[in-house]
Amino acid sequence: MFVQQFFVRGIAHSSYLLGGGDTCAIVDPQRDVQIYIDAAEEMGMRITHILETHLHADFVSGHLDLEEETGARIFAPKSARCAFRHVGVSEGDRIRVEDMTISVVETPGHTPEHVSYVVTDEGRGKEPVAVFCGDTLFVGDVGRPDLFPGRAEELAEKLFHSLHAKLMKLPDFCEVYPAHGAGSLCGRALGAKRTSTIGYERRFNAALAISDRTTFIRSLTTNMPAAPDHFGRCSTINRKGPTLTHTLPGPAPLSPAQFGARLRRKGTVALDIRQYDAFGGQHVPGSYNIDSGGNFATFAGWVLPPGKDILLVSNTDEEAAEASQMLRRVGLDRVAGYLDGGTFAWAKEGLPTAHVPQLSTDEFHRLINGTRPVIVCDVRARGEFEARHIKGAINVPAPDLRTKYRALDRKKTIAVVCSTGHRSSLAASLLKQRGFEDVVNIAGGMTGYAAAGYAGECPMCAAPHMPAMSRMA
Amino acid sequence: MFVQQFFVRGIAHSSYLLGGGDTCAIVDPQRDVQIYIDAAEEMGMRITHILETHLHADFVSGHLDLEEETGARIFAPKSARCAFRHVGVSEGDRIRVEDMTISVVETPGHTPEHVSYVVTDEGRGKEPVAVFCGDTLFVGDVGRPDLFPGRAEELAEKLFHSLHAKLMKLPDFCEVYPAHGAGSLCGRALGAKRTSTIGYERRFNAALAISDRTTFIRSLTTNMPAAPDHFGRCSTINRKGPTLTHTLPGPAPLSPAQFGARLRRKGTVALDIRQYDAFGGQHVPGSYNIDSGGNFATFAGWVLPPGKDILLVSNTDEEAAEASQMLRRVGLDRVAGYLDGGTFAWAKEGLPTAHVPQLSTDEFHRLINGTRPVIVCDVRARGEFEARHIKGAINVPAPDLRTKYRALDRKKTIAVVCSTGHRSSLAASLLKQRGFEDVVNIAGGMTGYAAAGYAGECPMCAAPHMPAMSRMA
Amino acid sequence: MFVQQFFVRGIAHSSYLLGGGDTCAIVDPQRDVQIYIDAAEEMGMRITHILETHLHADFVSGHLDLEEETGARIFAPKSARCAFRHVGVSEGDRIRVEDMTISVVETPGHTPEHVSYVVTDEGRGKEPVAVFCGDTLFVGDVGRPDLFPGRAEELAEKLFHSLHAKLMKLPDFCEVYPAHGAGSLCGRALGAKRTSTIGYERRFNAALAISDRTTFIRSLTTNMPAAPDHFGRCSTINRKGPTLTHTLPGPAPLSPAQFGARLRRKGTVALDIRQYDAFGGQHVPGSYNIDSGGNFATFAGWVLPPGKDILLVSNTDEEAAEASQMLRRVGLDRVAGYLDGGTFAWAKEGLPTAHVPQLSTDEFHRLINGTRPVIVCDVRARGEFEARHIKGAINVPAPDLRTKYRALDRKKTIAVVCSTGHRSSLAASLLKQRGFEDVVNIAGGMTGYAAAGYAGECPMCAAPHMPAMSRMA
Amino acid sequence: MFVQQFFVRGIAHSSYLLGGGDTCAIVDPQRDVQIYIDAAEEMGMRITHILETHLHADFVSGHLDLEEETGARIFAPKSARCAFRHVGVSEGDRIRVEDMTISVVETPGHTPEHVSYVVTDEGRGKEPVAVFCGDTLFVGDVGRPDLFPGRAEELAEKLFHSLHAKLMKLPDFCEVYPAHGAGSLCGRALGAKRTSTIGYERRFNAALAISDRTTFIRSLTTNMPAAPDHFGRCSTINRKGPTLTHTLPGPAPLSPAQFGARLRRKGTVALDIRQYDAFGGQHVPGSYNIDSGGNFATFAGWVLPPGKDILLVSNTDEEAAEASQMLRRVGLDRVAGYLDGGTFAWAKEGLPTAHVPQLSTDEFHRLINGTRPVIVCDVRARGEFEARHIKGAINVPAPDLRTKYRALDRKKTIAVVCSTGHRSSLAASLLKQRGFEDVVNIAGGMTGYAAAGYAGECPMCAAPHMPAMSRMA
Repeated sequence: MFVQQFFVRGIAHSSYLLGGGDTCAIVDPQRDVQIYIDAAEEMGMRITHILETHLHADFVSGHLDLEEETGARIFAPKSARCAFRHVGVSEGDRIRVEDMTISVVETPGHTPEHVSYVVTDEGRGKEPVAVFCGDTLFVGDVGRPDLFPGRAEELAEKLFHSLHAKLMKLPDFCEVYPAHGAGSLCGRALGAKRTSTIGYERRFNAALAISDRTTFIRSLTTNMPAAPDHFGRCSTINRKGPTLTHTLPGPAPLSPAQFGARLRRKGTVALDIRQYDAFGGQHVPGSYNIDSGGNFATFAGWVLPPGKDILLVSNTDEEAAEASQMLRRVGLDRVAGYLDGGTFAWAKEGLPTAHVPQLSTDEFHRLINGTRPVIVCDVRARGEFEARHIKGAINVPAPDLRTKYRALDRKKTIAVVCSTGHRSSLAASLLKQRGFEDVVNIAGGMTGYAAAGYAGECPMCAAPHMPAMSRMA
Repeated sequence: MFVQQFFVRGIAHSSYLLGGGDTCAIVDPQRDVQIYIDAAEEMGMRITHILETHLHADFVSGHLDLEEETGARIFAPKSARCAFRHVGVSEGDRIRVEDMTISVVETPGHTPEHVSYVVTDEGRGKEPVAVFCGDTLFVGDVGRPDLFPGRAEELAEKLFHSLHAKLMKLPDFCEVYPAHGAGSLCGRALGAKRTSTIGYERRFNAALAISDRTTFIRSLTTNMPAAPDHFGRCSTINRKGPTLTHTLPGPAPLSPAQFGARLRRKGTVALDIRQYDAFGGQHVPGSYNIDSGGNFATFAGWVLPPGKDILLVSNTDEEAAEASQMLRRVGLDRVAGYLDGGTFAWAKEGLPTAHVPQLSTDEFHRLINGTRPVIVCDVRARGEFEARHIKGAINVPAPDLRTKYRALDRKKTIAVVCSTGHRSSLAASLLKQRGFEDVVNIAGGMTGYAAAGYAGECPMCAAPHMPAMSRMA
Repeated sequence: MFVQQFFVRGIAHSSYLLGGGDTCAIVDPQRDVQIYIDAAEEMGMRITHILETHLHADFVSGHLDLEEETGARIFAPKSARCAFRHVGVSEGDRIRVEDMTISVVETPGHTPEHVSYVVTDEGRGKEPVAVFCGDTLFVGDVGRPDLFPGRAEELAEKLFHSLHAKLMKLPDFCEVYPAHGAGSLCGRALGAKRTSTIGYERRFNAALAISDRTTFIRSLTTNMPAAPDHFGRCSTINRKGPTLTHTLPGPAPLSPAQFGARLRRKGTVALDIRQYDAFGGQHVPGSYNIDSGGNFATFAGWVLPPGKDILLVSNTDEEAAEASQMLRRVGLDRVAGYLDGGTFAWAKEGLPTAHVPQLSTDEFHRLINGTRPVIVCDVRARGEFEARHIKGAINVPAPDLRTKYRALDRKKTIAVVCSTGHRSSLAASLLKQRGFEDVVNIAGGMTGYAAAGYAGECPMCAAPHMPAMSRMA
Repeated sequence: MFVQQFFVRGIAHSSYLLGGGDTCAIVDPQRDVQIYIDAAEEMGMRITHILETHLHADFVSGHLDLEEETGARIFAPKSARCAFRHVGVSEGDRIRVEDMTISVVETPGHTPEHVSYVVTDEGRGKEPVAVFCGDTLFVGDVGRPDLFPGRAEELAEKLFHSLHAKLMKLPDFCEVYPAHGAGSLCGRALGAKRTSTIGYERRFNAALAISDRTTFIRSLTTNMPAAPDHFGRCSTINRKGPTLTHTLPGPAPLSPAQFGARLRRKGTVALDIRQYDAFGGQHVPGSYNIDSGGNFATFAGWVLPPGKDILLVSNTDEEAAEASQMLRRVGLDRVAGYLDGGTFAWAKEGLPTAHVPQLSTDEFHRLINGTRPVIVCDVRARGEFEARHIKGAINVPAPDLRTKYRALDRKKTIAVVCSTGHRSSLAASLLKQRGFEDVVNIAGGMTGYAAAGYAGECPMCAAPHMPAMSRMA
């Protein structure tokens, strides 16, 4: 028996190769499946099984692509009623891969159809060696049950049962292989460690420590982090079966004139994937700014309107191609092209640009202590904001600005701030799209602000949330 | 807390990055340390600690290189009496890396100075989350205690104590991170899985299942696999501190004339790293053949005489450079050059070559059923031989031919066979060096022989071992 | 004006990017056209024109692929009557690319429809700066006119006129950009230098120095090197328009069992692209051996039967993929797969193999001076053989063995020799296919033989050519 | 005989491999010499000769590095009095490389010691086939003679003689291989084509067309483009012999704190190699901005003070390493480190930043037609400015701002403009260093301005040069 973990930054997704001697299963594959094919070839194994624990909400699965490439069989929860050819599995089913017996345990909660795969290595012993538990149990956390409107309590209750009556019945020594790690929005506070054991989680997992069902349900349905918009969409795509990636065209290079013309077409948006300073320097008016760093795919899935064609602005062709692949991971398949030559080609054509001033910590400090009317709009998640923020700042998580912008006073300078300057640049781009003219981005964000020692001068306090905003003048 | 495993094929060595948020420790680093520096950079961490569990016998450690590159501090067992600057640790010592407490537990047995590092993640709980146990406990096996001549029983007894009185006191849920995986000669039968838990090993590890001390000692000191010659050398190098790799020159290209002249110098050997069919086709007379596949480093460490300059014959410059790096892993630092242009350049100079005929399964079958006097020399390890072999074959593990060749009749055809044809090509090269003229290699080895269905005709049986050889005539 | 040359080893083909400021033409493109697209992009140019000087005999043109990728227009000789969309050009036509005027000059001779493109850089002056003369005039040589059976004299006469009445009318300073360099079989003795000038060639080109028409014709139609079999095929493909390469599948990995089954199908051949020593060590019986070195594509086009599926045996997947691309250059598009795992996987299945002993110079010398009946079969081209060879050797250029093998005595050892050992390994494979059992290859070839100082002992002499072979006994 | 050209963008430098069959010479090598070693190896040649035409002013030669790597001998003009081991050559000397005779012709003018190498291919004929003429004769231009203060006329006269009495004596068909192509500042207007012939240049080279010596001298000593500051330095380095590159350390990663501390040390400057929009968005105060595009090395050599340590700000580690290599080409060897994590890491530490607003064409138009007092500072070369510029703009070539800034009114907005926005960003950085606070960069430059159709509204006119500046109010 052999286990190899694959981790995708950004969506913090873990998938697995579970191998015997000659054949192997892939558990919860990501959409770009070549890495599994390469890994299996390096180990001298053939991929014969594809196991899905549930209909993933946060990314598009590679099940169909992997089946197409390898001929392996897809196993998925029967109750998911997937639309493609697969083996539907339910409680008690057993899958045999060489010496290994993989038992299906239904563990609804994060989603209604969720199952876990418990592995016994018959070559070594009769007790379970590991469980692939998807988004049911994480290292230090549990899967969130609040993604289905109106069903949060029902699912939280099921999750309680799945955890305590099912997974916690596994022996202490059983290894835990979850589908996500730190950074995922499928839980609240996942640990950096990427695997664990039943026994360790039994003792030190805060969510599992809540032994009272009602308390557990309340805890898991209250004050949960926001769920990105694409979470629903991905589930639907995964049930129906995503488009095979080899049938999707790569992004085409577009001259500035072609880019401009294409952008004027209905149903087309521009997405600038450069860093905040370059975006601030100059950008195509109206474009979204989500730099191709850590959380690119998540924020893109969150704020980009689905069903539209996407035009990319990047530093290089390669970055456009990579971004295109990352967008596919969250079901955004319609990248139509990219600006060939970037903003430099655009500028050389004399085309209009927009800008966002980038303020250093010092400049920011002077701004909020000056006489210019300013709103400090902290676009971090509520939890981050509550932990520590600037006095008088209002909190609107970046994606929420798509609707909550209305409460902001357009006559004032809007200073957007997040932890480092990246998310706030997205926020700035959203405000600019909505006609705000005086928007500045705080480079370095609250991290820089604290590092410069300004925290003391601006003591943190509770601030009202939108829409009852306090304004700074 | 974060753990990343690094695995080196061939020597089947596992090392680890154990990280907090900003800093990390590297446990039992391999000699080529750039991978740790890259990994740490990708995670945004600084390497601050280097932890050695023991003086590794099978590979040269990267501790000094890593210290040089990063400024991190080396921690090693105090009783190892290492000759370089380090912090000596012993039972009960505690090392703090951010939220983690790393406790030193002395676990002698595989080596006298061996320690294990037990990690508690104070951020989550007070019980140990994992143990880095080096070569004390493996997945499915334990470290061999027989590497020190005359001390096998003493060390086996210590190992028994280290396992039962120390490691088995850890809780079931504690994760086990050993320094080796399947393929290592530091144990007898390591599992393919690369990590485990205390509880799982407690239940299903065959060596741990022997509860009687005497039986355990006998088991671990009897019928152990052969230990390669370099096992002693590496320990010594690791205690003294290996040469920093950036001070070692890369292999120089040598023209056929230069190669030939260099090879005639005393204290120089030729090592041909090509596959058996190319070696068989033509090679520089007197060269060793160890193809650059899976077990290259181990066999090179085993059979090459230490303290000699090595000249490489390869297909390409790149392969020579890679081989040079692999040789450094087992302490063979004196690669002086490689044959520029390979054997084709050699042949174009009209220089002499030697050959080893490569027999297919059918040809082999005809040979041993024909009238030509032949010795079938099976060069696999004893365990492989005993499991199944050709009737009348004699068993001399390939490295042993360096001395046991004397018992072979030079007048007969020597047919060397292993499992696939690679190890037997090494055996053939050793025999050719010793003046045997009629040596043939069995391409495909016993694997091909069985696949062709010949096993039935040549039933397996017990065969006497050297020196009481049976001869086939 | 800007000129960049692209050179393909093996077929010794030169093509050109002829650029203005923003746009450029590609002259005589090779089939794998990405290099032009990349070069044009790096220069900031758009490819707008594709110029063909003639229907190339020795390689398949990239005209259609390049049109598909760039939308550029194809220009080709009107008299070639190409079957695809193009602009047919004839004497006096002018093509304008920015500041450059490209004048069409009909220069039949190498082929009947051949034209040259004379370029004037209007930005600098009214006289021609360069001529793209295809296979009419080379550095140090002229195009051979003997490729069309029965038309050699007629075409030689036309060539004389094209050279003297057309190209030699250009001024001395005009640069000469031919379609081939040293190594091409489209001429007899092309120079290593890849460009020249009209004036230099006027003075020092041996073929041009023959001022008498009749002598010129006789010279160009007598004792010409053999023309590979694919020379006719490529012309036909280029007229009709080759298959677009992006529609051709890559070679599929085949297990030994699949490879064997596929090979038994009618209309399938195996091509081993490894070097002679590995091929000699073991190979799939019946396979051709053309190693993937310098002349791979030419020899493959020459000896492989067209219209058959090709299965590759290589060291790696990458080499199989590269070979597949090189085969496409000579119109061999039907690579169906490659042996996954190579001959090692084949041997592990116990499948039959064949062998060719590789003799060193010394061994060869002993062989021909021994008592074993031997035929030394020198498989170099006639010119090479005549310059110097072993006494008593017979000369059959390697490809000719496909038919001339009948005159060889199967009871004798056939020692195949070429200049270095590579071509003779192809010869050996052809003989093995035809049932010869005792074939040995001379590693290092005549180069090694001479380097070892044996030339003196075996003085060179005239040897009869096939079929009146002399035999050595 | 074989010739291969190597071209380095940016400094527009051409060097050559001049080969026989087994050995070759390298003419005027660039400092990073691995490309020659690789090319020679690919051709199967050994590098035996290194030929220098003169002491290059615009780049540091690779002569010593190449000698060190290959053992080849350096040939240089005797009158250069080079300080390292070499063979000094003078008029009439002959160097033999296999079949080639290389004759030395003294061709002073661009520099006093300049020689040309005329090659005869004895294997083909007795007349010269090519001349390596360094910076004496270019395609469409001649070398500038004005780089030595006070000696311009003397050298122009020598150049006239070298051209007409020496190079023009060569036959028309002789090929011309110069040391520079379009983009070099060693001439005034080099052609895009990279080689030529004596005959073509004789007829169409404008400088050669001036048959009157006095007119020639006046032409070549009047209105020459500015010579970068490093032109003198490189000559000195090349005479003395540059530091061997393998002894130079690569740039070290520096944390923001380390970078800041290092920057405060005397004798240290910061160089930001990012594009103008990112630099404009935020940058380390006081840094130079020269983006790593086409003319990076030339502008760096020009404006960076020699003898100072350089700290780089880049997007990635790789870009810092590449920039470091490019800087070495112009003799800037003292790159001490780069900002690890870039400006984002800097901002997260809350450190101060500076900014340059990037104006689009429209914004620029509104600015100069508005009421805010503005100076349009056109930083292109004089020739570019004179061809076409905005009414009222003043012309100060970017490097000249280092001294001529004093004449600019600090109370006005300074709008810097060049052809595209890159050079003007360097200009902006120079002004910011000198305390100008209100500096804006025109993204897209005059190219964008013209493309947007604004040229008509702002008719081009003659504008006074510094110091008699016209101001726009």
